[in-house]
Amino acid sequence: MADQYAHSGDDMRPTEIRAIRWEEPPEGPVLVLLDQTRLPAEEVELVCTDASTLVEAIRSLAVRGAPLLGIAGAYGVALAAVRGFDVDEAATALATARPTAVNLALGVRRAHSAHEAALAKGGDVRQAASAALAAARQLHREDAEASARMAEHGVTLLDELLPGGGHRILTHCNTGSLVSGGEGTAFAVALAAHRAGRLRRLWVDETRPLLQGARLTAYEAGRSGMAYTLLTDNAAGSLFAAGDVDAVLIGADRITADGSVANKVGSYPLAVLARYHHVPFIVVAPVTTVDPDTPDGASIEVEQRPGHEVTEVVAPQVPVAGAAEAGGGIPVAPLGTQAYNPAFDVTPPELVTAIVTEEGVVSPVTAEALAEVCARSRRVTTG
Amino acid sequence: MADQYAHSGDDMRPTEIRAIRWEEPPEGPVLVLLDQTRLPAEEVELVCTDASTLVEAIRSLAVRGAPLLGIAGAYGVALAAVRGFDVDEAATALATARPTAVNLALGVRRAHSAHEAALAKGGDVRQAASAALAAARQLHREDAEASARMAEHGVTLLDELLPGGGHRILTHCNTGSLVSGGEGTAFAVALAAHRAGRLRRLWVDETRPLLQGARLTAYEAGRSGMAYTLLTDNAAGSLFAAGDVDAVLIGADRITADGSVANKVGSYPLAVLARYHHVPFIVVAPVTTVDPDTPDGASIEVEQRPGHEVTEVVAPQVPVAGAAEAGGGIPVAPLGTQAYNPAFDVTPPELVTAIVTEEGVVSPVTAEALAEVCARSRRVTTG
Repeated sequence: MADQYAHSGDDMRPTEIRAIRWEEPPEGPVLVLLDQTRLPAEEVELVCTDASTLVEAIRSLAVRGAPLLGIAGAYGVALAAVRGFDVDEAATALATARPTAVNLALGVRRAHSAHEAALAKGGDVRQAASAALAAARQLHREDAEASARMAEHGVTLLDELLPGGGHRILTHCNTGSLVSGGEGTAFAVALAAHRAGRLRRLWVDETRPLLQGARLTAYEAGRSGMAYTLLTDNAAGSLFAAGDVDAVLIGADRITADGSVANKVGSYPLAVLARYHHVPFIVVAPVTTVDPDTPDGASIEVEQRPGHEVTEVVAPQVPVAGAAEAGGGIPVAPLGTQAYNPAFDVTPPELVTAIVTEEGVVSPVTAEALAEVCARSRRVTTG
Repeated sequence: MADQYAHSGDDMRPTEIRAIRWEEPPEGPVLVLLDQTRLPAEEVELVCTDASTLVEAIRSLAVRGAPLLGIAGAYGVALAAVRGFDVDEAATALATARPTAVNLALGVRRAHSAHEAALAKGGDVRQAASAALAAARQLHREDAEASARMAEHGVTLLDELLPGGGHRILTHCNTGSLVSGGEGTAFAVALAAHRAGRLRRLWVDETRPLLQGARLTAYEAGRSGMAYTLLTDNAAGSLFAAGDVDAVLIGADRITADGSVANKVGSYPLAVLARYHHVPFIVVAPVTTVDPDTPDGASIEVEQRPGHEVTEVVAPQVPVAGAAEAGGGIPVAPLGTQAYNPAFDVTPPELVTAIVTEEGVVSPVTAEALAEVCARSRRVTTG
């Protein structure tokens, strides 16, 4: 069951955005989500009291973003356990709520394993539920800590590369609190630079087709009090030509063993522009993003998404008269138009100035340096 | 007064798109326009019987595109003259219907001067009206001929650069019949390649923020029977990386004396991508686009357009519940978001493989070669 609280009015605006939180009011524990489908028009919270509501929230993209999905999945298992529902059933439903979200399944498994281990050790139902919740909280904390460390390493790197301060940073897609247990990846670095008084402007690519930049990054930048400006993706070239971009900061969906970076479509053109204009191109991602089993960029299979994302324009939560059936958006292209709609593109390591992880900075980007940073992470985990 | 004819059903679909035509039915001469605000959803024709209807059509963007506006303006003067309205008044209203459209004022002046010259030579009102109409028809014919010659030169160039045929051509914005008295500039070259059986695919950039590619170029490509695919502007990088673009063909708003090309924003990033991938970047434009008084790209003042074109998405002729006032579109960014929205960008001559004009091809692009081609045009005009 979900209740909705609409926050409106400027008095309700804290600067911190919490995409997910566990609360324990007298009526019993709940998982509170910021409904991302309503942003930026409205700040509405969804209060989940069982796993099936959370599954629905995941399916409807109310909660989204790889790391955040993992945390949500783990809390979902804990919620089922604490409230006395069938934990195995909840875990299965949550893990398969979205087919390709690896982090989601991993997060679910982590809380589920903790639950099973507690039972196996002879713990009672209450102790097992506590173990699941502890595992979820631990994952949440780890993600927040990783964000903080990426931000720290990133700001240090920016200070080295751009000693004068007054950074004008271009970013693409959405990489902040809305996809993270903490403050995110690339956005977290920009935010840390802002807090240190070193950010002059954040240039926000709108990020077609789904406009995550216009809808979500602009929202996060505004909420954080950053000086930001929105632009169409193809206007970035003019900014580079005018010398108005000091660095590009982006996240990553996957980084291959050789340092190729798969990220939201539109990242690669920025890398080429950055190289042509001698501007640093910096990728910020946790070490869990590195996939040592995929040797290089050519080995990545790029997801092709439905054409209606391009042939129609979507707007969050606005009822549209005459909206087409296919995607529920507004048709802008002639009926029957075929569209090429890759979800992401691949930037080769030679165009990446640095990869910033929570374990340190990889620069120049080589397979060896990347493996070394990942090994640091494994040492910490197993040590 | 304007009548509207809605064309619907496939039986009404000729392959030729005529954005403007002069007709002389028994009720008296009329100027027939294809209402571009209704594309691609509907093919509706506006029938103008006086200059004030045409002024309204120009203001509402039912008719648009620099060369086409010039032709429309000239026909508007002829229409006023033929139908016995005040020609001076009509000429003034038409010439100022849109503030920055130089071609519009030039077209109006051409028909108006012909009208005045006929009267000055002692002609009667009917003879003066005929002179105005003849001037409009001449301008229309010249523009169509220029298109045809650009297409011819362009196809020859493509055959030289890409001898194998099977061209996969990427284009940006809208440069076909909808902006021309003929078949346009860059689009006309792609169309000629298609007719010659040498076009494998036309890649159509959607062209944010106003989506001229999705709305208009996709429409023209479909009507012409070309194999075309629509993409978001930032997906072009993936096509280049995959080796799926053989040439880029774009138009130009203005070409400076040194060969710098001002064109729709998003052209420059394509030029940089094309250079990085060793793909020819070809500009197609009539010699009237060359402005010898502007020495170089840095001297061009770039028009900054309203931010609501970016913070809202517009859809042609779809009634939207809750549309914001600013631009009448659907808000996608948070309220108060500032946007950077340059109308065009500037590509330096060193990134341009060739400029195709009706007088021949300039390649490599140098100030001298460009001046030489422009001089050819002046010889023809004054000869």
